[in-house]
Amino acid sequence: MAAEALDQLIRLLAKLPGLGPRSARRAALFLLRHREGLMVQLAGALRAAAAEVHPCSLCGNLDGADPCRICTDPRRTSDQILVVEDVDDLWAMERGGLFRGRYHVLGGTLSALAGIGPEDLGIERLLGRIERDEVAEVVLATGVTVDGQTTAHYVAERIARLAERDHPVRVTRLAHGLPVGGELNYLDEGTLEAALRARQSVA
Amino acid sequence: MAAEALDQLIRLLAKLPGLGPRSARRAALFLLRHREGLMVQLAGALRAAAAEVHPCSLCGNLDGADPCRICTDPRRTSDQILVVEDVDDLWAMERGGLFRGRYHVLGGTLSALAGIGPEDLGIERLLGRIERDEVAEVVLATGVTVDGQTTAHYVAERIARLAERDHPVRVTRLAHGLPVGGELNYLDEGTLEAALRARQSVA
Repeated sequence: MAAEALDQLIRLLAKLPGLGPRSARRAALFLLRHREGLMVQLAGALRAAAAEVHPCSLCGNLDGADPCRICTDPRRTSDQILVVEDVDDLWAMERGGLFRGRYHVLGGTLSALAGIGPEDLGIERLLGRIERDEVAEVVLATGVTVDGQTTAHYVAERIARLAERDHPVRVTRLAHGLPVGGELNYLDEGTLEAALRARQSVA
Repeated sequence: MAAEALDQLIRLLAKLPGLGPRSARRAALFLLRHREGLMVQLAGALRAAAAEVHPCSLCGNLDGADPCRICTDPRRTSDQILVVEDVDDLWAMERGGLFRGRYHVLGGTLSALAGIGPEDLGIERLLGRIERDEVAEVVLATGVTVDGQTTAHYVAERIARLAERDHPVRVTRLAHGLPVGGELNYLDEGTLEAALRARQSVA
């Protein structure tokens, strides 16, 4: 019924999270009605971001610079690292301006089922940063899910072993003001701030 | 916090219907995780569709060819025209394979509030097609909304005046099996088919 180019566009749009076939069709029509103002611009933004935006080799944040602007910001303290599952969790913390240290983005959680082990989450890289930057505190901010908490526990253990051999590191986790079962990036800034303030030692 | 290219991508994605700021961020992250498989392809599909897909100068359907493949399909009868508000309404009819005539896409409805008059909906173009192609029946398939029905009534009146001067044209509308207040492109094929079968003369 429609052109191949249009079918292909709808097919690709439908792969985006939050869009199904019907909303992909609606989005495609909307784009064709806003050709110059949106459609061509979006094509350019996709190409630009695909070419320019990459994970930071230190912390895993997505940025145009490597190391990213958070890792190189001289106004931020490098003796605190907040560990998150994903980049959108980092964004959620940053939107509130809640934390002035550095981040470590795991890129997921440990999962026997999905075959995700410590080597997939850059945990050696985190331990290396802790030693090299003389990090005084690691804040574990993974989600309050089974996998998130298992991962936090594993990271805390690895850091504890490291601290025995070397310099002491305080390991904290966000307070359990977070709703159980929730994901970090869906929470409001007030809850995130309360949880950050009430963070508790686990090692 | 993130690169300008990423901010720009999220800002543009958030303009799509069905995506807000949060789901736009989620979509951007998803795209960056599927760079080659989706992100670059989507950029290409947007450019291709923006360049190749245009409204048919006869009926208003979106296609790579002009006149579109529906207007030039020799297996379809040209003595029936089904009038819809928008291209997605045409797609809804075509998905069911319910109609074997031609279409006329108004591109909206008459609306005093939004300042949309007959000249904005290609109604003269529709009247021209009816005369030129010796159309025997016009099926009005605008939505069962105040604006949709007002528009259908206006189109029926214009065709009636035309038919007085010239050849007789049967003007029908889809049966009121459609739920009142509903929009055509949200309906299932069964309802559309029942409504098409029970279409009634209005002029």
